Amino acid sequence: MADPIVTLTTDFGTASPYVAAMKGAILTVNPRARLIDLSHEIPPQDLRHTAFFLAAALPHFPGECIHVIVVDPGVGTARPLLYIELGKLRLLVPDNGCWTELAKAVHARPVVVRLAEPSFWRETVSATFHGRDILGPVAGHLSLGIDPNRLGPPVKNWIRLEIPSPRLEGKQLWGEVVFIDDFGNLITNIPADVLRSLPGPLRIQVGEHPIERQVRTYGEAPSGAAVALVSSTERLEIGVSQGNAAKQLLALVGAPVTITFRE
Amino acid sequence: MADPIVTLTTDFGTASPYVAAMKGAILTVNPRARLIDLSHEIPPQDLRHTAFFLAAALPHFPGECIHVIVVDPGVGTARPLLYIELGKLRLLVPDNGCWTELAKAVHARPVVVRLAEPSFWRETVSATFHGRDILGPVAGHLSLGIDPNRLGPPVKNWIRLEIPSPRLEGKQLWGEVVFIDDFGNLITNIPADVLRSLPGPLRIQVGEHPIERQVRTYGEAPSGAAVALVSSTERLEIGVSQGNAAKQLLALVGAPVTITFRE
Amino acid sequence: MADPIVTLTTDFGTASPYVAAMKGAILTVNPRARLIDLSHEIPPQDLRHTAFFLAAALPHFPGECIHVIVVDPGVGTARPLLYIELGKLRLLVPDNGCWTELAKAVHARPVVVRLAEPSFWRETVSATFHGRDILGPVAGHLSLGIDPNRLGPPVKNWIRLEIPSPRLEGKQLWGEVVFIDDFGNLITNIPADVLRSLPGPLRIQVGEHPIERQVRTYGEAPSGAAVALVSSTERLEIGVSQGNAAKQLLALVGAPVTITFRE
Repeated sequence: MADPIVTLTTDFGTASPYVAAMKGAILTVNPRARLIDLSHEIPPQDLRHTAFFLAAALPHFPGECIHVIVVDPGVGTARPLLYIELGKLRLLVPDNGCWTELAKAVHARPVVVRLAEPSFWRETVSATFHGRDILGPVAGHLSLGIDPNRLGPPVKNWIRLEIPSPRLEGKQLWGEVVFIDDFGNLITNIPADVLRSLPGPLRIQVGEHPIERQVRTYGEAPSGAAVALVSSTERLEIGVSQGNAAKQLLALVGAPVTITFRE
Repeated sequence: MADPIVTLTTDFGTASPYVAAMKGAILTVNPRARLIDLSHEIPPQDLRHTAFFLAAALPHFPGECIHVIVVDPGVGTARPLLYIELGKLRLLVPDNGCWTELAKAVHARPVVVRLAEPSFWRETVSATFHGRDILGPVAGHLSLGIDPNRLGPPVKNWIRLEIPSPRLEGKQLWGEVVFIDDFGNLITNIPADVLRSLPGPLRIQVGEHPIERQVRTYGEAPSGAAVALVSSTERLEIGVSQGNAAKQLLALVGAPVTITFRE
Repeated sequence: MADPIVTLTTDFGTASPYVAAMKGAILTVNPRARLIDLSHEIPPQDLRHTAFFLAAALPHFPGECIHVIVVDPGVGTARPLLYIELGKLRLLVPDNGCWTELAKAVHARPVVVRLAEPSFWRETVSATFHGRDILGPVAGHLSLGIDPNRLGPPVKNWIRLEIPSPRLEGKQLWGEVVFIDDFGNLITNIPADVLRSLPGPLRIQVGEHPIERQVRTYGEAPSGAAVALVSSTERLEIGVSQGNAAKQLLALVGAPVTITFRE
């Protein structure tokens, strides 16, 4: 049998010793755990970014992995830490809603346990680093095969983080930019199937900027042209061929995206 | 036997979910694959940077590894995806020439197959993310030991990316900067053996900047001095001891480097 | 038995091919080694940053790991390379003092060997890349279980890097910022137990900036407030709730931190 996989998603950055300390904490409990970095470059404490990230990445993983997510503005306060099962996916995460979009994406009914059993934690728990002191060690124990019900009591309530839905107004659909990737591509909250259902021709705008071209892939557009296309996450995406749309269109997360369609 | 290694080299950045999704896609096919990150910080769509990176890094790997490279400005267009054998090295890469310098570096005659067999791909293939939908799953299958000839037909033609060679003009050798590393060191296209063959004393310039000192290693130079030395990749390198040559000399990739030698 | 773990801590950055080449060099010697990235974003040649990083991270690791550290301003000069045992911890490191704070942190008496046996190195050793040519291959051999005494002679002298201690002056304690993490939190050289021993109320200043609030965790402070708290490394830490203290207080490593206490 393959050794168990533990993935790590944090906003720690890697110039700091925090990721390393957390890896050590996991391996101290289970030296056989196979650690896989997903990201340590989540923008600090950005829960919406995390929500999009998890919903886009985790459905592609096989079962049996343990996914540890540490983006945790509430560390040290009374906010719970949770173990969550979403179908085959298993997560360890602070109770801040960063996983509820993922639950929608995989159409799974969550089974949730609140971490309450300190015998699975580091002996000394700091007030500011529960990734190292609680989530890491618990991930180690889970990778050893312990029953998740030993971690604490089941819970039925948790924080939800709502990504706003686009809305229809007359012959216009109003959405917004919900994520900007490392290429500067703008990913919107407008699902590809909604986009496909609108009667064309479509006029697409990001803020005041009209997006003249609609393409299937970036290679179809001249270099530097702003284009609309369907993202690999099946949403309307705005990008610039061989360029950076966020910079070129001065767009931030939350920027309005409107589609005017034929009446 | 050790579990098979799959290395990853991309321009995705890690704030985005793309690297994570690709790792999931590989592990879905082969949960035993050992994933090793080489870089996700290749400058976006920079094929020359990729070419230098691969030629400097991959020859140091043992056989049996599968190296997946996803720097892919042409994603979704008709550009093929390739499986390549270069001696003991095995690559999966878009057909954009980023690997042909590596082939020269290892003096290997390439065996090339065009990926054409969708049964080894993700069921749904997007137009913008072939790393997740084709290259990742194929890497998983290769790591399981399938015969590469099942991936598609052999091909004899592919894109070549030429790194310009230095040229001799009278008592001057004209080269250029072909790579700038994270320290700001400037690596040129002038091979160390050519450098050693020139009759001294040598006068070296980057653009208009004379490089006064020639040293064996950075520790021999006073802090802040621009120096010429032989790089670990056996080329002329220009750097600043405890500083950043690219910033100090305002040099970019393509900057001319001239060596004036004794007649 | 689990395959042996080799961790990597460097200042190479990952846009460059150096990390990849070093990974290849380790795997060439031992294809079963499990490589774990701790950081490749140590600020270039910053030994104090490295010292803090190692002291904060490595004590959390289990035994049996081999920790390779390559922050090496003296590469290619006569500075030795060392194999070090600190209790259960095993390091490979240039002799530049970056590990002596770690030795203090784990209260271990170092056993030190100077690498002198080229049969464990790459056949060709460059003047500028001993991570790839010496430390990487030696890590591979150690992970195969060779006796460290075969690497070279024991040594009794090495470079020490002193992190300055805080000093007491009347009713004031003078310390300084010794590390700034990726969140912009300022970590000082003032130990938590010293802090707790001072008779309150305490007045804390970073440079000219008074820090009004003392909290247990960031979640207790209003967004944007500069606060003092005990770090996860058990030192006085200054941060800004949901903000970046280094930017907000314009503080660099070395900035003075003063605590005025009740007489």
